[in-house]
This record gives sequence, structure tokens and C-alpha cells, in this order.
Amino acid sequence: MTFLRQPTRAGVRDAAAKVAAILPPTPLFVAEVHGTPVAFKAECLQPMGAFKLRGAWHRLTAIAAEDRARGVVAFSSGNHAQGVAWAARRLSMPSVIVMPSDAPKVKRDATLAMGAELVDYDRKTESREKIAAHLAHARGAVLVPSFDDAWIIEGQGSAGVEAAAQADATGFGPITRVVSPCGGGGLAAGLALALPDAAIVTVEPEGWDDMARSLDAGWIEPVRDDPPPTACDSLQTMRVSERTFEVLARRDALGVAVSEAEVRAAQRWAASRLRLVVEPGGAVALAAMLAGRVAPMSGTLVLLSGGNTDLADYARVLAEEAPAALAATS
Amino acid sequence: MTFLRQPTRAGVRDAAAKVAAILPPTPLFVAEVHGTPVAFKAECLQPMGAFKLRGAWHRLTAIAAEDRARGVVAFSSGNHAQGVAWAARRLSMPSVIVMPSDAPKVKRDATLAMGAELVDYDRKTESREKIAAHLAHARGAVLVPSFDDAWIIEGQGSAGVEAAAQADATGFGPITRVVSPCGGGGLAAGLALALPDAAIVTVEPEGWDDMARSLDAGWIEPVRDDPPPTACDSLQTMRVSERTFEVLARRDALGVAVSEAEVRAAQRWAASRLRLVVEPGGAVALAAMLAGRVAPMSGTLVLLSGGNTDLADYARVLAEEAPAALAATS
Repeated sequence: MTFLRQPTRAGVRDAAAKVAAILPPTPLFVAEVHGTPVAFKAECLQPMGAFKLRGAWHRLTAIAAEDRARGVVAFSSGNHAQGVAWAARRLSMPSVIVMPSDAPKVKRDATLAMGAELVDYDRKTESREKIAAHLAHARGAVLVPSFDDAWIIEGQGSAGVEAAAQADATGFGPITRVVSPCGGGGLAAGLALALPDAAIVTVEPEGWDDMARSLDAGWIEPVRDDPPPTACDSLQTMRVSERTFEVLARRDALGVAVSEAEVRAAQRWAASRLRLVVEPGGAVALAAMLAGRVAPMSGTLVLLSGGNTDLADYARVLAEEAPAALAATS
Repeated sequence: MTFLRQPTRAGVRDAAAKVAAILPPTPLFVAEVHGTPVAFKAECLQPMGAFKLRGAWHRLTAIAAEDRARGVVAFSSGNHAQGVAWAARRLSMPSVIVMPSDAPKVKRDATLAMGAELVDYDRKTESREKIAAHLAHARGAVLVPSFDDAWIIEGQGSAGVEAAAQADATGFGPITRVVSPCGGGGLAAGLALALPDAAIVTVEPEGWDDMARSLDAGWIEPVRDDPPPTACDSLQTMRVSERTFEVLARRDALGVAVSEAEVRAAQRWAASRLRLVVEPGGAVALAAMLAGRVAPMSGTLVLLSGGNTDLADYARVLAEEAPAALAATS
């Protein structure tokens, strides 16, 4: 049984200090969207390509010294796996990642390259939750959830602490609104705690906008049966958690959804204007701004949360239409 | 007649202070190449997508207050044009860019968007040098060369001052070798002045390696007749200048050339490992490292000098082969 610790603003500040001790801040770029200057936090430029190492670092460093040798277990085929593997390697801890046997070879290789041990499961017949829980129990290892955990939420929120300091130092001014990609809601909830005076907007792919519907309803609504295919693999979460939902609901967060075409347009915009490779799930907040689903407003911070995408897929997105080449505008 | 001022290390330091007053340092990323950690200076993340605003800023701020209203003139269809336009707008100075009438619309638009006035010329029948000189004379404006100028060289060198401070602060350690893209040699010469104890390597596209041949010969050799086509539009300079050549020759700089395929492989590597969009000419130094034309060595700084490239062209480069997807490795 886990003690149901709730994430706090103090915890986010603690996480930010811990992350600052080992990683330089990711850049904050200011660029105009529909004529309004917007601040972009480039988490795609983290060493493993996404914000996920923040939460993993805060969580793993909270493990008592005497327990570290038994390691950590996580289930994920994506950025969370790499974040946990990255943090574990840095702490010389063993890490086990439970990954579907049909996960792309590149994701398997990247996780292996970070020193993790992979345990396969069959997506159709086995439960990764059960396998991970069993492994953690058998080894005395700590199970690291991808979003439903106070430390993980606090750790992700460190991006907001960093961004606020950068916005202040560079003259962008106070952050009054945060627009964030949302899967399970760990990043968005962390940012809400980090920036207590900002309006919060979560962005999800169409058909996967369970956080938006939950915020609207006032209780948690899972993704409906047979959700549409989406390129946003990092945001395919079937249900948010009490912890993330409550933080966001208490802040009257607004949830919006974006189309697949809007996501691709945002990926192209990020390449041409910011020279950044952003994965589909990492580009949804930008997509919402560009598509006018979130009105331009000064003081807006947009999270570009990750850049891990298959090169061939990415090339197809860039080639789809290329009205604006990579000439600069700001 | 211009006083033939020579670029100096003191001038580079002055330029670095001036640039630091208006722009945050571009990030310095450390990633392994063939097992050796290498520092990458991401000049593609400058606001206009390339290092060129450094030299332009140092040059334009050296113009006496009473002369600024008459503005500046430059000839370029690429990054230099945008750098000059960027600096002029920032100083509320008029800028005129002489550009071939068949320059890509996106480059024209980007330069116009930065507030520059465009003057067309016919690439086949007119001399841009003459047009620019005539315009400068007629308007009493200052002609800003793209590399053959002490201020421009010093300004570009500010990237080296920044990188040295970052390498020191992040524990990468002293920079003992710099590998830099080379067109006219302004960036490479500036870096040589900025880092007086480092070995200098210039990198050019095959067939356009006049700096390499000049350094080898001991005197300036222009590009031979009928050079091969290259995607590295920003490095298509027919002849380096005395100023840039002498700085590099005095430092026993080594020049190497890379193939077009090696450049494309470097663009793919930068996208997948660093999540950066790098233009062909901006990727040649990385290409030389990856292709083994420059041996891995600790303390090496590689310049990723720009990221302004047509999206459709870039998509073709990424699609060409995609053995490694964008999963992270470090």
C-alpha cells in the first residue's frame, strides 16, 4: 500500500532545486503567434528528448539510500521509460522497463542504451500493470508510475519553476497562462502547482480528450471506447488519475482538443520557426495556439514537451505541405 | 575607402559583451560521437536561425550615432541578409538588401518580415557588388560585407567566447579544438581569435573547399571553375578573403571537405539525437566528425551554424534513409 501523498507547491520547488543541480534549464524561446509574443519551453531539448526525466529524477532521489540497490520498475514504451532509465543510470540504480514485445526497435534500443533491463509482455494477453507490480514485489524494487504519483507530478512541475525564472530574467514578464500537452495530466498538474497565479489549459488529441471532458463534467471520464488513431503516442492515456485531475479541477483548468492535421501543422511550424524537432504529442499545445483553439494572450507559456519521433514519420509530416520554408521571421 | 582594420581578440571580447547584452547564449549540448563527448554550439537556435546576427550586431553598433539614420546595405540572399536586417531593426536603422530576383520567395519574405527593403538584381547580367556599392554611396549608407570585415569576424567569434564559458560552467572542460563550417571564413576566423589555444578545423563541401586548399598552399586559391552542385547554399563562396585567410593560416588551421551524402547524414543525426533542425551548410562540421574526417578527441567544439532550410528539401533529407529513429540515446 502506498501512502497517498498529495503533490504540493513546496514539493515542486524542491524538485526544481534538485533538477537544477544536475541539468541546465531547457531554453525558453519567445516567438509570435498570430501577432502575440508567446514563450515556448523547449523540453524536447532535454538529454533524453522529453520532460519525463524531471519526474523520474525527483522520484528516484526520494528513494532511501538503503533501498536504491534494489532498483526501480516502470511500464512504458516511450518517454517515461527513458526518463526512468536516465535517472536510474545517473544514480547507478538498476532499472527494469516493462515494454510490449511489439514496441518499435528504436525505442527498445534507446532504453537499452540507457542501461535499463527490458521485460517483454504480450499486449494482447498480458497486463503490464500486473507484470510490473509482480516484478517490483519480487525484487523489492520501487514501482514508478508515469503520472499518478506525487513526486512525478512535482518533478514535472519543475519545468514551470524554470520557465517562470527565465521569463522574468529575459523580460518576457510574468506567466499568466500555461498551455500544456496532457496525457495522464502529470505535466499539467505539476505546472499548475508551479505557477499558482496562471490560468491552465490542457491540450489533448481529438477523441483522447478525457481530461477536457472530465474537467467539464466535474468528475473523471475515461476515454470512450474505440478512440480514433492518433500520432500522439505519448498522450494515449485511457484515464487520468484522481491526483492529477483534482489539482487541475481545483484550478478551473480548461481542456481543449486538437485534430491530427493541426498537430502536424504545429510540427512544421516548430521546425521552420524554432528549428526544433517536436514529436506529435509534444506539439499539441502549440497546435491549439496556432489553430485558434486557445486565443493568443500575452504572458502565455506553451510547453513543447518532447521530440522523440520516428524520422520517417517525421519526414512525412514535414513533406505533407510546406507553405512556409525554414526562413526566419523573428 | 575603408581603413583595413584587422580583427583582434580584444574586439571579439568586446563583441561578446555586446551580444550578451541583447541575446541569451545559444545552448551548448554535449553528445557522444563515436564514443567521445563533443560539445555542440546550437547557433541554429538564434532568433533568425543562424550565427550571422552576431557579426551584424557588432558591425552596426560600431556605426556612429549620427550616421545610423542613413542605414546599411548588404548583398546576400541568405543568413547574412537576415542577420543584417535583424540588427538594423533592433537599432531602428533602415536596411537595404540586394538580392537576386530569383531568390526563393521564403527568403525574400523572411527578410521583408524583418523590416528590410529589398533591391532586386539579375543574377546573369548584373553585379550585386556594384549595385550595393552604388546604393551605399547614393544613400550615404554603410556597406556591410558578409565576412571580409574586422567587425563581422569579431562578432562571429563571440560564439566562441560564449561556448568557452559554457564548457567551463557545465564541466565539459577547456575547448582544445574547434570544428567550424566555412564559407568565406568569417565564423572560423572569429572562433580562432576567440579561442587562442584551440586547434582550428574548417569544413567545406567537396568542390567548394577553397579554404582547405588555400591553407594547404599557403596562399589564397579560389574555388575552381564549375564547382559541383551543393545543398550547402550558405557556404557557396568563390573566394575567401585576406583577413579571414590570414587569421586561420597563422593558426595552422586544417581544412577538410565533406560529401553531400555526409552532410545529409549529419542533418539526420542532428534531428534524431539533438532534436535540432540544421541546414546543410550548418551541418558540415558535424558531418566531418561523423564521417571520421576529423578524429574524435576530447575538448572538441562543433558549430551547428544555422537552421534555415526549405521544409520540403529538409523532409527529403530526413526521408532518404531513416535507420535510427528519433529515440534518445543520451
